[in-house]
Amino acid sequence: MANEKVCGFVHGVYLRLQSLIARFLSRIWRFLEKAWELGASEPRKVIHCLKVGVALSLVSLFYYMRPLYDGVGGTAMWAVMTVVVVFEYTVGATLYKCINRATGTFLAGSLGIGVHWVASQSGEKFEAIIAGILVFILASAATFSRFIPSIKARFDYGAMIFILTFSLVSVAGYRVEKLFEMAHNRVSTIVLGTSICIFTSMLICPVWAGNELHLLIYRNMEKLADSLDGCVAEYFNRDGTAKSSNHDFGKKMQGYKCALNSKASEESMANFARWEPAHGHFNFRHPWKQYLKIGAAMRNCACCVESLSGCINSQIQIPEFLKKNFSEVCMRLSSHCSEVLRALVVTMKTMTKSSMTDLLVEEMNFAVQELQNALKALPNQLISPHGSVNDAKGDTTSKQFIVPVIEIVPLATTISLLSEIAARIEGIVDAVDDLADLAGFKPATDNKSKQSQCTTDKIDDETMKVLQKV
Amino acid sequence: MANEKVCGFVHGVYLRLQSLIARFLSRIWRFLEKAWELGASEPRKVIHCLKVGVALSLVSLFYYMRPLYDGVGGTAMWAVMTVVVVFEYTVGATLYKCINRATGTFLAGSLGIGVHWVASQSGEKFEAIIAGILVFILASAATFSRFIPSIKARFDYGAMIFILTFSLVSVAGYRVEKLFEMAHNRVSTIVLGTSICIFTSMLICPVWAGNELHLLIYRNMEKLADSLDGCVAEYFNRDGTAKSSNHDFGKKMQGYKCALNSKASEESMANFARWEPAHGHFNFRHPWKQYLKIGAAMRNCACCVESLSGCINSQIQIPEFLKKNFSEVCMRLSSHCSEVLRALVVTMKTMTKSSMTDLLVEEMNFAVQELQNALKALPNQLISPHGSVNDAKGDTTSKQFIVPVIEIVPLATTISLLSEIAARIEGIVDAVDDLADLAGFKPATDNKSKQSQCTTDKIDDETMKVLQKV
Repeated sequence: MANEKVCGFVHGVYLRLQSLIARFLSRIWRFLEKAWELGASEPRKVIHCLKVGVALSLVSLFYYMRPLYDGVGGTAMWAVMTVVVVFEYTVGATLYKCINRATGTFLAGSLGIGVHWVASQSGEKFEAIIAGILVFILASAATFSRFIPSIKARFDYGAMIFILTFSLVSVAGYRVEKLFEMAHNRVSTIVLGTSICIFTSMLICPVWAGNELHLLIYRNMEKLADSLDGCVAEYFNRDGTAKSSNHDFGKKMQGYKCALNSKASEESMANFARWEPAHGHFNFRHPWKQYLKIGAAMRNCACCVESLSGCINSQIQIPEFLKKNFSEVCMRLSSHCSEVLRALVVTMKTMTKSSMTDLLVEEMNFAVQELQNALKALPNQLISPHGSVNDAKGDTTSKQFIVPVIEIVPLATTISLLSEIAARIEGIVDAVDDLADLAGFKPATDNKSKQSQCTTDKIDDETMKVLQKV
Repeated sequence: MANEKVCGFVHGVYLRLQSLIARFLSRIWRFLEKAWELGASEPRKVIHCLKVGVALSLVSLFYYMRPLYDGVGGTAMWAVMTVVVVFEYTVGATLYKCINRATGTFLAGSLGIGVHWVASQSGEKFEAIIAGILVFILASAATFSRFIPSIKARFDYGAMIFILTFSLVSVAGYRVEKLFEMAHNRVSTIVLGTSICIFTSMLICPVWAGNELHLLIYRNMEKLADSLDGCVAEYFNRDGTAKSSNHDFGKKMQGYKCALNSKASEESMANFARWEPAHGHFNFRHPWKQYLKIGAAMRNCACCVESLSGCINSQIQIPEFLKKNFSEVCMRLSSHCSEVLRALVVTMKTMTKSSMTDLLVEEMNFAVQELQNALKALPNQLISPHGSVNDAKGDTTSKQFIVPVIEIVPLATTISLLSEIAARIEGIVDAVDDLADLAGFKPATDNKSKQSQCTTDKIDDETMKVLQKV
C-alpha cells in the first residue's frame, strides 16, 4: 500500500514537472517565434545587432593583438565601454552620444585637473573638502541642466558624462599622482571607441535618423490618405457592406492612428537627425524641425479623421436617397483631399516642388464649395417638417421629399468634418511648402520622376472632368 | 589723419566687441532666468539635483575616508559610476536601473568567468578565438533582444549592462589572472553604489513614478472636463464674447491637448511604476497597466473635443433663436459630461468607488436622449425649405420659422460630436471602473472624503432639478 502511495506521489510529481517543463518550453518557443518574426520583418535590426558584434570584436581584437594593455581598469575597459554604451541603432543617435561623450569627458576632465591643481596648493586636508564641495555643486548644477528642455534635447548624455568624469577625476585625483597619464589614456581610448563606432555605424548599412524621419512622415501621410478614403467609402458604402469585414481594409482605415501616435518617435528622430552629416538628398543643415511641424499638422488632421470614423458607427441611418445624393459630392471631396495628401507624399518622396499641389488644393477647396452648394440647394429637394408629412404631400408641385431633421444630423456631421479635414489638410500643405522652401526643393520637371508624372496624369484626367462639369 | 583712422578703427572694434559681449551676457541671463523659473515652478526637480549631489558626496566620502582604495580603475570608479548612471528622477526609474544593473552584471559576470574557465582549458591561442566568437554572438543576441518590445520595456538597461560586463570580462579575462578578485570588487562596489542610490532616492523627498502617473491621469481628466466646458460655453457664447479673449480661459480650453500629448510619459511612468514597492495608497502590484487604458480612452475622447473646438471656429453662424433653443440642452449635456469626468477625478483622487458615478452616467445618457428628442421635436418649430420661404409664410397656421439647412449644419455637428464625446466618456468610465476593481478601491462613505461629499451635494441638486423637469 505504502509503496503504491509513494509510486502515485512520484508519478504525480513527475507529471506536474513534465507539464511545467512543457509549458516553459512552449513559452520559450513562442518567444523565439516572435523574435524570429521581428527579425524577418525588419532585417535592418538584425544587421544592427551584427554591427554591434563587429564593433565589439574590433575593439577586443585591438586589445588581443597589441601589447598596449596595462591592467583591467586601465585603458581596455574604456574603449569597450564606449562601444557598448555609445553604439545606437541610427547614425544620428550614435554621433550624438559620441560627440556628447567626447565633449563631456574633455570639459569635465580639464576642469577636474584644474580644480585638482588649485586644491592641491592648499594642503591635503583642504583638498578633500574643496573637491567634495565642488563635486556636490557641479553635480547638482549639471543634473539640473538636464531638466532644461533645450539642454535635454541636445546635451542630456553629455551632461551625465560630465558629472561622471568630474566625479571620477575628483575622487581619483585625490589619490593618484599619475593624473595626466590617466587622462591621456582615457582620452585616447575614448577616441578609439568612438571612431570604431562611428565608422561601423556609417559604413555598414547605415540607418540614418533623418532618412527614417523623412520616411515616417510621408508614410504616415499615405496612411492618413488611405484611411480618409476608407472612412468615407465605408460611410457611403460604395462597395457594399462586404468591405468593412475585410481585414486589410479595416487595417487601412486605422492608418490615421499611426499619425496620431508617432509624436515621440518623430521628436527623438528629429533630435538625432541634426547630428548627422549630409547623406542621400539631405544636407547637413536640413530643416529637421520643420518635420515636427508637418507631424503636428498631420496629427491635427488625424484627430478629425478619428472623429469621422467615430461618426460612421453612429446608430442613426441616413435616408437612402439623401445618401445617394450626397455620396458623390462627399466622395469627390474626400478623394480630392487624399489626392492632395498623395501629391504631398510625392513632393516629399522626390523632394521636388510640384506646382500641381496648388492646383489640387484649389480643386479641393472647390469641392468643399460644391459640397456647401449642394447643401444650400438641398431644401429644394427634400427637407420638410417631420410632423407635417401630409402638408408636403399635398404640395405636389414642388416635389418635396420629407425627411425629419434628426436624420440629416449624421450627414451634416460628416460634411462639416470633411470640410474641417480639408481645412486642416491645407495646414499640412503649408507646413510641407515651408519645408520645401527651407530645404530648397527643386521644381519638379517631367524627366525628374516618373512616379510624380504618373500621379500628375491621373490628376489631369480628374481636373478635366471637374472643369467640364463647371 | 592716419592716427584718426586707427582711432576710428579701434573704436569700431571696441563697440562691436562691447555689443557682442552684451548680447552674450543677455543670452546667458535669459537662460539663467528660464532655469530659475523652471526651478521655482518645480522645486522637486531642484531637490532631485541636491539628492544627486548628496549621493555622489556620500560615495566620494566613502573613498576619502577609508583606505579601501586600490588604484583609479579599481573599485572607486565603479561605485561613482553606478551612482551617476543609475540615479534617476523617480524611485521607479532608479530601482529599474539598479536591479537591471545588478542582474545584468551578475549574469554576464558569472557567464564570462565560466566561459573563461572553459576556454582557458583549451590553450591560450584558442582562448582568444573562443572569447572573440562568444563576444560577437552574445553581444548580437543581447542587442537583438533589446528590440523585442516586452524586453525593451523591462530589461533594456539590463541587456546593455550584460553586453558591457560580458565584453569586459572576456577582454580583461584574457590577460588578468585575478579575475575573481576583480569580480568580487566590482560586485561589492555596485552593491555600495546601488544601495546609496536607492536609499537617497527613497528616503529624501521621494518622487514615486506610480504617484506621478496617478496624478498625471486625473489631472488630465480635470483638464479635459475644463476644456469640454470651455468649448461648449464658447460656442453658445453664454457669457458674451469677452471670455474668449481671456488668457486663462483660452489656456483652459486647450487643456485637452495635455491628454492628447502625454502618451509617451504615461508609458514610461507605467514601466517604472511597476518596479516600485508599496507606497502611499498603492500596493506593490497595483494595476499600473490599467492607467494606460484610461489614458488611451481619454485621448480617444480628447480627439473629439479637439474636433469640436475646430467646429467652433466654423464660419457659418447658427441662427440666433436656434442657438437659444439648443444652447440649454447642449450646455446641460456638456456639463453632465464634465460632471462625470469630475466624479471620476474624485474616484481616482480618493481611491474610493462611488455609486454616484453610475447615476451621473445615467444622467448623461438621459441628457443625450433629451438632446435627441429636442432634435426630433425641431421640425415642428423651424425647418423649412430655403427656396420656398413664401410657401411657409403663407402657411401661417403651423407657425413655422424658416431656416436653410446649411445653417443647421454646425449645430448638427456640435450635437453629434457631443453625443460621441458622451459615448467616449463612457469608455473612460469603464476603464476607471476596471481600475477600481483591479486595485480594490473601497466604496466611498460620507466621512471618508469631504471633497467627494461636496461634489455629491452639488450633483444631487442638479439631479433633483433634472428629475423635476422630467
